Amino acid sequence: MTTDCIFCSIPETEILAENELALAFWDKFPSNEGHTLIVPKRHVASLFEATTEEMTSIWELLREVKRKLDERFAPDGYNVGVNVGEAAGQTVLHLHVHVIPRYQGDVPDPRGGIRRLKKSLVPWIEEEESSHI
Amino acid sequence: MTTDCIFCSIPETEILAENELALAFWDKFPSNEGHTLIVPKRHVASLFEATTEEMTSIWELLREVKRKLDERFAPDGYNVGVNVGEAAGQTVLHLHVHVIPRYQGDVPDPRGGIRRLKKSLVPWIEEEESSHI
Repeated sequence: MTTDCIFCSIPETEILAENELALAFWDKFPSNEGHTLIVPKRHVASLFEATTEEMTSIWELLREVKRKLDERFAPDGYNVGVNVGEAAGQTVLHLHVHVIPRYQGDVPDPRGGIRRLKKSLVPWIEEEESSHI
Repeated sequence: MTTDCIFCSIPETEILAENELALAFWDKFPSNEGHTLIVPKRHVASLFEATTEEMTSIWELLREVKRKLDERFAPDGYNVGVNVGEAAGQTVLHLHVHVIPRYQGDVPDPRGGIRRLKKSLVPWIEEEESSHI
């Protein structure tokens, strides 16, 4: 735990789910209804610093979070992902897995999902006919 | 294996790394230099259908892939993520983890990374001053 890390001091009342090595809570600036973050309890900055045991805990918690979100929001899909480093958009330097429920019609054209973070180097087959990016 | 799934029949020569339950290969429409996909060898459509053993294999392979990409491309960061379902942008219905190396300056403002897949429901603190989306 580092005292100046917001993900090291999530109030107990805000915890959505928890297991031995990980915990889940709502994102404060949700991209969609139900946007949740899953973090290891131990303060590690990067995905690549987590142990296999921590990743297994995160993975098991993800399944539990998904069940809760399905029940509460009944989304049509999910994006699950991690930013590693400032060049990838990481702003809080405590590993966090974004769990973003997706709903039909929430963007004009969802195809590609995570690959749309930036424009492809070669034209993506479905980008040509798409107006989303 | 299903015969009409492109990720069930990746040619051996295109495999970048492999372990017991997972394999990695280059994305055909890379978002950036080194964009790699990691899949379970077993044909499962969704992240949530993978077993814990498959996720552990994927996680271990991810670490190996990261070492290879660091050596070859020396990126400044990574986005690692999965689209689940068509509403989330999944187009090939065989679970695949996107590993997207990121480089300083590859987008005007990278902050937020994966959360930028769609506009926030509440204004994200850094979106107001950003021109990226």
